[in-house]
Amino acid sequence: MKLVESVNPRTGEPAGPGVSETPPAELSSALSLAKSAARRLAVEPITERAALLRAIADRLDDRAEELVPLADTETALGKPRLTAELTRATFQLRLFAETIEEGSFLDVTIDTPSPNAAPGPRPDLRRQLEPLGPVLVFAASNFPFAFGIPGGDTASALASGCPVIVKAHEGHPELSRRVGEIINSVVADHNLPAGIFTVVFGQQAGRDAVVDPRIKAAGFTGSTNGGRALYDLATGRLDPIPFYGELGSINPTVVTKAAARARGTDIATEFVNSFTLDHGQLCTKPGLLFVPVGHKLDSALAEAVSVVPPAPMVNARVAESYAKLSAELSAHSEVRSLITPRLHTEPGAWGVPCLFVTSAESFTESAETLAEECFGPSSLIVEYASTHELINALQAIEGSLTATIHGEQSDLQSLGPVLDVLRPRAGRLIWNDWPTDVPVAWATQHGGPWPSSTNPTHSSVGASAIRRWMRPVAYQAFPQELLPESLKDGNPLGVPRRIDGAIRR
Amino acid sequence: MKLVESVNPRTGEPAGPGVSETPPAELSSALSLAKSAARRLAVEPITERAALLRAIADRLDDRAEELVPLADTETALGKPRLTAELTRATFQLRLFAETIEEGSFLDVTIDTPSPNAAPGPRPDLRRQLEPLGPVLVFAASNFPFAFGIPGGDTASALASGCPVIVKAHEGHPELSRRVGEIINSVVADHNLPAGIFTVVFGQQAGRDAVVDPRIKAAGFTGSTNGGRALYDLATGRLDPIPFYGELGSINPTVVTKAAARARGTDIATEFVNSFTLDHGQLCTKPGLLFVPVGHKLDSALAEAVSVVPPAPMVNARVAESYAKLSAELSAHSEVRSLITPRLHTEPGAWGVPCLFVTSAESFTESAETLAEECFGPSSLIVEYASTHELINALQAIEGSLTATIHGEQSDLQSLGPVLDVLRPRAGRLIWNDWPTDVPVAWATQHGGPWPSSTNPTHSSVGASAIRRWMRPVAYQAFPQELLPESLKDGNPLGVPRRIDGAIRR
Repeated sequence: MKLVESVNPRTGEPAGPGVSETPPAELSSALSLAKSAARRLAVEPITERAALLRAIADRLDDRAEELVPLADTETALGKPRLTAELTRATFQLRLFAETIEEGSFLDVTIDTPSPNAAPGPRPDLRRQLEPLGPVLVFAASNFPFAFGIPGGDTASALASGCPVIVKAHEGHPELSRRVGEIINSVVADHNLPAGIFTVVFGQQAGRDAVVDPRIKAAGFTGSTNGGRALYDLATGRLDPIPFYGELGSINPTVVTKAAARARGTDIATEFVNSFTLDHGQLCTKPGLLFVPVGHKLDSALAEAVSVVPPAPMVNARVAESYAKLSAELSAHSEVRSLITPRLHTEPGAWGVPCLFVTSAESFTESAETLAEECFGPSSLIVEYASTHELINALQAIEGSLTATIHGEQSDLQSLGPVLDVLRPRAGRLIWNDWPTDVPVAWATQHGGPWPSSTNPTHSSVGASAIRRWMRPVAYQAFPQELLPESLKDGNPLGVPRRIDGAIRR
Repeated sequence: MKLVESVNPRTGEPAGPGVSETPPAELSSALSLAKSAARRLAVEPITERAALLRAIADRLDDRAEELVPLADTETALGKPRLTAELTRATFQLRLFAETIEEGSFLDVTIDTPSPNAAPGPRPDLRRQLEPLGPVLVFAASNFPFAFGIPGGDTASALASGCPVIVKAHEGHPELSRRVGEIINSVVADHNLPAGIFTVVFGQQAGRDAVVDPRIKAAGFTGSTNGGRALYDLATGRLDPIPFYGELGSINPTVVTKAAARARGTDIATEFVNSFTLDHGQLCTKPGLLFVPVGHKLDSALAEAVSVVPPAPMVNARVAESYAKLSAELSAHSEVRSLITPRLHTEPGAWGVPCLFVTSAESFTESAETLAEECFGPSSLIVEYASTHELINALQAIEGSLTATIHGEQSDLQSLGPVLDVLRPRAGRLIWNDWPTDVPVAWATQHGGPWPSSTNPTHSSVGASAIRRWMRPVAYQAFPQELLPESLKDGNPLGVPRRIDGAIRR
């Protein structure tokens, strides 16, 4: 039996004994269990689903002292960051519990019967969102908790009432196995069928699952190439399914002339902190910084980068890809390096921070290569001589999760055209802040135009992420006895409902 | 230049002079105009967009005496039905005007800044839905108004703030051209750029447009094969786009033993009325009727069908496909015809009503052919001997727009298992009514699991149809001056907003 084996990125040594790839028969059994558990989970009272989410959060928090070191051995992200990330993941689980208890996520809409309505008699019609069925989640490499086994896709799908099968990332099988065991133990304690949650291992299991008719939707966080291949499988099925992929993102950041003048040095430092945070292994890393020519920030930038030490990347594949892409940038004829390349020859999967500069004109001409995401601790500064050059360069960029402007009060009147280019290219627009942190809240938007997402109409983080796993079902002239509780007369669940067009509770 | 030419289905004669296929250069120019109009339409005040929708509705209503006969010549659907359909289309336009004025469609969500929030400091975050950009609509053959040029996809996309390019159906080019001219005249009267609305002609123009980067989403109503081909193009793009196809649907209808006993003859008559309505050319036609064995309704059913005369179908392709599929059913070894096949030899595209019977066992075994949609005035009665047989047969059915139960009060306790099989297979569940009519309202759901829709998470009819053309955009720490009106402090537009988790106005 083949093993999924992880490596300690700091040393290159095995990080654990490895976990067996899920064999086809075992996957099929998990899919059948998920299918038969779907109805049970869908009719489970919302309060029970919320209790399950909170219990998973509590149990994971309780095991932090075991889980964080395990994650650190496999990803080298560091214990402080991983501790914070686990807190973020359990916060998400609790936010989704709160979200479903609030009830708006059902989008209950009722039209009372109206025999004389235009354009014709209208029957009693009651509509709500219901879970799609078993959801497949592909866990990410760079967030073993918050986008991993217990991450936002898993939490939002369980919250919606869908059973979840998570395909563990190859980078951290030991942690994935353990987190899976913990979640399964909570499911068992709640007397819920085991089929509502399963972790599977191995790329073949992931590919087999995404084309299996028992899977009704899939979520993915990772590279554009990997996500595209799975998207093609999901949409190429005889019965296509929704596929929510969160892929690559370049996250353009624009610094106006006034801002560069007023606080260029601060911006330079903050920028370096942002693009080297977590060693640049964030989908929200600012990969492009547009600054006016004559900014005189070269030495401040170079100094800030030079004090960031080389560090291990989450896994060898990421380290290799980063080394290759940053070397290509370094060798590009229209690009210069702001700091002398440093060599790092220790064993393991290390990455060396770097920073590059090009002109807006060159960027516009070579955007196909220069605007490509380089996952890791590097960024590209693009110097623009005029708003015209800036806008041309921004127009050459594809979709991103975020776009940021650093500006001053004096810029507000003239920024319209810049904003008009950025808006269709991003899911989150940021003013005088940095894109790296993704707040988890009701108003969160994490998702943008292709290639940052396969589907820009949703968010993979925040309260609205639940919507991805639900479909509307309408009940026409249905007897009270057969209606879901949320749609019955008298509103026994007390959820917000739109009745004849007006929201009531 | 190639012409799109329609034929009068009643006579087989040309229905008009034909309309030129849109040449590639003209299509490209329309796409560019749509792209540049997108920003303008997106920032147009909601009240102005609503006024545009109402003005289009008014102008179309004013031209009913010209448009209805034109539609009738090309589709043979009959003036009463087409008059009602035009009213339905203009009602939809006005409902969408009302929906956007109400404001909830923006889904405004604001989180106020919270420096001490868990899991970390939270900035000011304001999120709303914004239009995706130019939308491509493929008009349907069987509803030249309500799912045609001025149909639900067009109306909902314009309401959302997206420019629309409609690819006219080959079946009614003369009507499509004229409706396009009328809508364009309204757009001009409102001093809006012409690029917000264009009608294009020819299948090649449709295929070219769906893969054009300037198109950001597409809607389709039509056959499963046609829709699937376009879905594959849309999802196969370098930059895939959302594709909302409303395809084939078999609409299973179950009659319980108690209902058959209590009102079998009424159900038989209503069923025949429903499956022959508009000569069976409705995606909500009940294509399967499950009745208990020993129902003794054969003669009532046969008599009701025999008085429905042969009638012209909307076009020759539909007529040919219907003749082929109904002949295959008639020839199937496990299927018997309830009425003697009638011949119809007049010129034109005529279809002959028919009704078939099979057993639940045979149906389950041969579901791949017997559960296939046969668009036109035919249906298949499936006789079941037990609930077990019924459930097995229902499990062999794919997704549908609707599923219906005819039952009695005495059935309510025992219907759970039947409902559990129907629920995951339909978007609208109906009790003691017929699926044919689709109410247009806030709670409407028109869309279901594959193959009834390419994306079951949305509706193509009713107020929520707008959601398909919108994507969330969040503004982080943005200055008031740069925020959209709907997100500004003080709520100048007075739209419903969720603030820190609670809905307010």
